[in-house]
Amino acid sequence: MGLTAEARRQRWDVDLTATGPGTPGGTFLRQFWHAIGRGEDLPAGRAVPIRIMGEDYTLYRGMSGKAQIMAYRCPHRGAQLHLGGVEDDELRCVYHGWKYNCTGQCVETPAEEPGFEKKVKVPVFPTEEAFGLIYGYFGDGQPPAFPPYPESRGEGDVEAWPVEHVPCNYLQSFENSMDEVHVAFTHQPGGSHAALARDLPIITAEETDWGMLRFGTRSDGTVRHTLHYAPNIVRVIVPPLAGMDGIGGWPEITFHFTPVDDENHLWVISAKVLVNGDEAERYRQKRAEFYERRAAAPSVRSVVDEIWAGRLAYADIRHPELAIVQDIAVQAGQGKIANRKTEHLGRSDRGITLWRRILARELRLIAEGRQPKKWQRPSADVIPVIGANISRTVGAA
Amino acid sequence: MGLTAEARRQRWDVDLTATGPGTPGGTFLRQFWHAIGRGEDLPAGRAVPIRIMGEDYTLYRGMSGKAQIMAYRCPHRGAQLHLGGVEDDELRCVYHGWKYNCTGQCVETPAEEPGFEKKVKVPVFPTEEAFGLIYGYFGDGQPPAFPPYPESRGEGDVEAWPVEHVPCNYLQSFENSMDEVHVAFTHQPGGSHAALARDLPIITAEETDWGMLRFGTRSDGTVRHTLHYAPNIVRVIVPPLAGMDGIGGWPEITFHFTPVDDENHLWVISAKVLVNGDEAERYRQKRAEFYERRAAAPSVRSVVDEIWAGRLAYADIRHPELAIVQDIAVQAGQGKIANRKTEHLGRSDRGITLWRRILARELRLIAEGRQPKKWQRPSADVIPVIGANISRTVGAA
Amino acid sequence: MGLTAEARRQRWDVDLTATGPGTPGGTFLRQFWHAIGRGEDLPAGRAVPIRIMGEDYTLYRGMSGKAQIMAYRCPHRGAQLHLGGVEDDELRCVYHGWKYNCTGQCVETPAEEPGFEKKVKVPVFPTEEAFGLIYGYFGDGQPPAFPPYPESRGEGDVEAWPVEHVPCNYLQSFENSMDEVHVAFTHQPGGSHAALARDLPIITAEETDWGMLRFGTRSDGTVRHTLHYAPNIVRVIVPPLAGMDGIGGWPEITFHFTPVDDENHLWVISAKVLVNGDEAERYRQKRAEFYERRAAAPSVRSVVDEIWAGRLAYADIRHPELAIVQDIAVQAGQGKIANRKTEHLGRSDRGITLWRRILARELRLIAEGRQPKKWQRPSADVIPVIGANISRTVGAA
Repeated sequence: MGLTAEARRQRWDVDLTATGPGTPGGTFLRQFWHAIGRGEDLPAGRAVPIRIMGEDYTLYRGMSGKAQIMAYRCPHRGAQLHLGGVEDDELRCVYHGWKYNCTGQCVETPAEEPGFEKKVKVPVFPTEEAFGLIYGYFGDGQPPAFPPYPESRGEGDVEAWPVEHVPCNYLQSFENSMDEVHVAFTHQPGGSHAALARDLPIITAEETDWGMLRFGTRSDGTVRHTLHYAPNIVRVIVPPLAGMDGIGGWPEITFHFTPVDDENHLWVISAKVLVNGDEAERYRQKRAEFYERRAAAPSVRSVVDEIWAGRLAYADIRHPELAIVQDIAVQAGQGKIANRKTEHLGRSDRGITLWRRILARELRLIAEGRQPKKWQRPSADVIPVIGANISRTVGAA
Repeated sequence: MGLTAEARRQRWDVDLTATGPGTPGGTFLRQFWHAIGRGEDLPAGRAVPIRIMGEDYTLYRGMSGKAQIMAYRCPHRGAQLHLGGVEDDELRCVYHGWKYNCTGQCVETPAEEPGFEKKVKVPVFPTEEAFGLIYGYFGDGQPPAFPPYPESRGEGDVEAWPVEHVPCNYLQSFENSMDEVHVAFTHQPGGSHAALARDLPIITAEETDWGMLRFGTRSDGTVRHTLHYAPNIVRVIVPPLAGMDGIGGWPEITFHFTPVDDENHLWVISAKVLVNGDEAERYRQKRAEFYERRAAAPSVRSVVDEIWAGRLAYADIRHPELAIVQDIAVQAGQGKIANRKTEHLGRSDRGITLWRRILARELRLIAEGRQPKKWQRPSADVIPVIGANISRTVGAA
Repeated sequence: MGLTAEARRQRWDVDLTATGPGTPGGTFLRQFWHAIGRGEDLPAGRAVPIRIMGEDYTLYRGMSGKAQIMAYRCPHRGAQLHLGGVEDDELRCVYHGWKYNCTGQCVETPAEEPGFEKKVKVPVFPTEEAFGLIYGYFGDGQPPAFPPYPESRGEGDVEAWPVEHVPCNYLQSFENSMDEVHVAFTHQPGGSHAALARDLPIITAEETDWGMLRFGTRSDGTVRHTLHYAPNIVRVIVPPLAGMDGIGGWPEITFHFTPVDDENHLWVISAKVLVNGDEAERYRQKRAEFYERRAAAPSVRSVVDEIWAGRLAYADIRHPELAIVQDIAVQAGQGKIANRKTEHLGRSDRGITLWRRILARELRLIAEGRQPKKWQRPSADVIPVIGANISRTVGAA
């Protein structure tokens, strides 16, 4: 893996998993937009609490449809602003009626002297929507371009999936997304492992100006290109979803692993399926049936808890979100924050190894007060693909 | 508010919210009787655990009807005494049958040498009942006069309400009781805030020899006098209870915010309604119906948790104890112990400001080993009232 | 009790309750086999997580029927091995298919270079079965003889009971097993205490080369011999089980109090009932009916929680496992780790006093790096008995 003992030691000088304000990891993460939820889960007039990278915020949608991230507490006496009421595009605190607009300016303090409100302001944070998702920017200064990555090309349906809460550090899930080999084992319990092991991909990866491009090369020459956008997004083509009878073919899916705090993250997903006309109708019908089964099923977390406690065998999991249950059970099962100091990495971990090296480098630059890499908006030319003879000459990671 | 920067700094030299033994706050609180529960919830022969100001105790009611607070654990091998059995007015430990009387003296140790019991004694604490409530005294020396405040005058029903557990420091609820403005916003979600804001009271307050007398003056000259008995009791006249169709008029209610520990308190309530004859019967019938609806409703805490998680909108709360749900959601939502260092207080917070000044003064005296104020039993002459032209010349707090 | 003040002080120099690796208490405990579960709860092909003395492990049963304790995590990237699949007598990790045999040797790493697996090994731990139970050895070097104590003599049924999880330090339950007096009070609530107190046993005990032999002598000369095998096993004759109508007489029961961590332990039980022929059939029928009632009852822990909260009176407990509910409520009610510094011990605590002295001695020897006692496998000659004129001259503890 090209790392000297000294380099390996230095990698652990910084905490790769930190997400909180003021930590190198938290500063690194705060350079980027973060997907914080699904647009359809926030109707106009609703305010909800969110916790992102160890800090609490209020998210509300004004009556005009505008979503806005605001401070968690009213500066008067600390009431939670998400208990407040939305009026037009403004939010009124439930405790004493102090009202704030989208810029954070207080515009009413009913029981105080006239003009009192002018001195009161709450922090607000850039908030945008794309791909069915709401994104926030929590860093200093101006946010980077939005949306943070190009839209998928081709006519089709964009579908944001229900957000999952994953009880472990975000980096475990992001690393898992670089680990194409796990699919044959984690998602095929009870299947013939011997058969699967016959054609496992060879993993290579290279750093790009927007993150990491990773290749999985099969023995028949097929190569899968997967895009890992810094700091926590993966864009990938996946097999037809379970129960869809192949309608829509292989969709393109974008996963966002957004830290809630150091020990929890949101798994925020947007999918693009190239369907139109009658096929689109059949696709939507199938998905509606899926969501009915999902609503009737036990929560993902409750199944994961049964598995962790040893009361349910992994091979006996039955759930409409089987792959999600499996991924959360295995990745969050590595621990709230996986111990990376006792690993035995191999060639199949090259994507993970490269990303850790990039991450450690960036975090050290930040820790030392030096200029970190200027990440670029991903080009629309680089898309996730699967096929033969598409592989560039790839440098082994 | 008349506080210099220096005075403001000094206020925070002491922890206003501490309740534990040995802290200035805990010593201050232990000068007074504390309401610990409702008499009717403790039938003769029952023993229950209680936790007050960070310490555990056993509370039991002897067969004669006498309630008694005793140490939490048996001194033999630490069994919880509330598991024990009541015999006459004595309590026998469930582990080895050691038996204690109301003075704490052990009177039987069945498996030990005769006379062994004479050497064994457990702490007991003064325990009294009034207004449908059980009170305990946990301080050194003799307790102050009992009951701690005069009975309300006039014929009527005294009704102790079910005790609520509030998951935050007691001072938040006590401060909220000094905050008459919140009613228009916290308890009227969805109502017309503009209309409410037209006639918010002007708050003034003054220190008395028993606590703090607070005035809420409306633009029409109506003044509401509310009594804040040191250290954590409020006596107030409130509008007719929801669903009572006005029967009984405006009742007088006494709230006790009794610390369980620094991060939890009991909300112990006794109400006096001036009803008699047929009206009393109609009142009781209405209340019985209310308690039926209450028993069928989800727990207050479960609704609060839904609100805090953002799964239920504040305006959508439907619960027989609507005001209690709202108060707990908002006040405990300030945090387990509200951060008072980042507040922006205004004129409507004058009651709170005065009480904090009094409290800080007392706690500093205690911390410095000097003589704190000698609080007096409240006079029966000073009662909560609402009316025009009743206001004394009030000194602004 | 023959302890000078100095000796009493020294007893507390060591933490009698510690179970974790590297502590004197943990080192002491790791000299012995520990019962970790019931054989019938682990069918062939199943893998489950276990936590013993503060450390996590994987326990699985191969297809041949062999049970094996293995490391908790795969050394590759830390996945929990109990999520893996059993193949023959080997365990394959669910994350990337690494496969381990019963010696801990990795035998497959499908996505890695051939031969990679040879470098990979996981810790495994001696695992044996007897008396319907699975035992593990977690110490250094060779384990002591197995089974750790002789089988009970006489024809009959051996029955392992469902394992209970007790939320307190193991030593509290082990001490309780030395405390014969508690039975009259803990297990007879509502009964006539005066009557019980008339014939409480006099307790004496002596150290043996395998642990402690304890005697309970009644006023009629009857003596009960109970065996306390080091470090946490008690073998005792108990009255006919509730609801069995006396079938099977007084069974011999062996309790194992196996630490999960410092604040939790497993209560692992194996019973031997001297029944055969028709009586054995009637016994099994009765037990089957008992297990049906048990399955329909609320969990032991949920009842204990109601008692601790004061919502259920001890005398009102109704549960098929009444004695187990009572024991857990009382012993775990002493606290997660009972405070032994504030006790008032008496003559009835002589068994406890002796065992603490033995334990403190051994822990001090270990802490000082000196040679602790060489404990012997219990002789088959020393069995628990109850009867008149069987008492040896016993040295008072």
